[in-house]
Amino acid sequence: MTYNVPDSHPRKNSLERRYKLEEASSKGLLAGTAMIAHGRGEAFDYLLGEKTIPIANEATIQAAIMLKSAVRPIISVNGNTSILAGEELVGCAALLSCPIEVNIYYRTPERISGLVAYLEKCKKIVSIKPPENWKRSPLEWEEAVNNVLILGTFADGLIPGLNGPRAICDVNGILASDTILVPLEDGDRCEALVKMGLKVIVVDLNPLSRSSLMSTITVVDDVTRFSNNLQNNLLNFQRLKRKNWDNKESLQIALDTINNNLQSSIK
Amino acid sequence: MTYNVPDSHPRKNSLERRYKLEEASSKGLLAGTAMIAHGRGEAFDYLLGEKTIPIANEATIQAAIMLKSAVRPIISVNGNTSILAGEELVGCAALLSCPIEVNIYYRTPERISGLVAYLEKCKKIVSIKPPENWKRSPLEWEEAVNNVLILGTFADGLIPGLNGPRAICDVNGILASDTILVPLEDGDRCEALVKMGLKVIVVDLNPLSRSSLMSTITVVDDVTRFSNNLQNNLLNFQRLKRKNWDNKESLQIALDTINNNLQSSIK
Repeated sequence: MTYNVPDSHPRKNSLERRYKLEEASSKGLLAGTAMIAHGRGEAFDYLLGEKTIPIANEATIQAAIMLKSAVRPIISVNGNTSILAGEELVGCAALLSCPIEVNIYYRTPERISGLVAYLEKCKKIVSIKPPENWKRSPLEWEEAVNNVLILGTFADGLIPGLNGPRAICDVNGILASDTILVPLEDGDRCEALVKMGLKVIVVDLNPLSRSSLMSTITVVDDVTRFSNNLQNNLLNFQRLKRKNWDNKESLQIALDTINNNLQSSIK
Repeated sequence: MTYNVPDSHPRKNSLERRYKLEEASSKGLLAGTAMIAHGRGEAFDYLLGEKTIPIANEATIQAAIMLKSAVRPIISVNGNTSILAGEELVGCAALLSCPIEVNIYYRTPERISGLVAYLEKCKKIVSIKPPENWKRSPLEWEEAVNNVLILGTFADGLIPGLNGPRAICDVNGILASDTILVPLEDGDRCEALVKMGLKVIVVDLNPLSRSSLMSTITVVDDVTRFSNNLQNNLLNFQRLKRKNWDNKESLQIALDTINNNLQSSIK
């Protein structure tokens, strides 16, 4: 099924993202309930005003600093993250010289390899167009992108404290990392990663979710907007200022924003 | 894929509903983005505390009175409503002696006939078990359920003011009705139904949606809980008290409930 959303449509962006997920779903890349999760996110994004709020911007800056300062950073992606922000996160991984690991909750070999192939395609697309603020040569960008490893296919490790296939991860990926960016993470797995001693950065539109409450830094933002924003911050890394980060306090600010938006009330 | 959700799981109910939709989706009964819509609903339900709030209960009572007082009531269902509340709404239609019309946004003959067949199956299931408060004989119940017409397959009319297949409806169904219960309705179509002069009852978990703001009565509740509740109210119709209904005021109360729940805040 093809959809043509006219440019004038007020929700064009949101609708096109839906169709992207729908297409990926029909190709078997997403778990059956992935779209439900996206819908939950849409509702919270709607309550946030469908834009990056200031505290999310600040969280993204601190996340950029934390990832840049890490010894072995890694970006862990699930199906929705791959589809909605694959290209942007490939760019971030190139700037961080770190791998991306596909890590899905309802793991099947077909979906893992489908998503890995999808991200390899993202690499091809991203490698030929350096970002605007890239100061070095196009060839160096291409090389940086080509060097991004997409892990997940031959995962042979286990995240301690989790049962079943969702525990599977790469010994040279998540298990070897000290800082993990893991957008849209499930609460259980987020908790297990924190218990492993990792610094955990999640992106979650619900400031009250277990993942949000548990992480080192929670970015209450849409994953595509966040990934774009992170890439820009990584490109301008020199200018970023580290702050003491109180994650609970920042979640409270995000929650207050939602509350204020809701106060606008029925006309 | 089969899922066994243990009875102890705090979100058993919610997860089982997801799998029900997932199954229907894999059978081609739902539009690709139906699950996204469900996810949005889930988020709002979460903010409502996943229970029927008092103002939604009152709205359901007034909806029961409005439907009982109508000359030609009708229940219009889309894919998600059919899957999540098919049996309950068949029971309501039996109590109202009214038809159910399948009316979907992304209309295909396969999906329409699939949903009609699904609701016919619901009729079989419902017809053999009268509700607890049914005062007449089981045979009379069976007859009432069997008499419920499931319309939609041979729809030959158009809702004025709408373009494309989503305007299609039944001349002897929606076009002939004076009061319509249309859970989970799209804003555009809701507006068109109101403009036709119909009394419109919607069920919508988002008190700020266009459908919510436009309807005669908006029930801010989950569609399954609502349908159960409506059936019980229709069975106890004699005891219900009519009230003047200010829909905007009731939406404000629902919104205040969400706000209060959010105030509980980050611990």
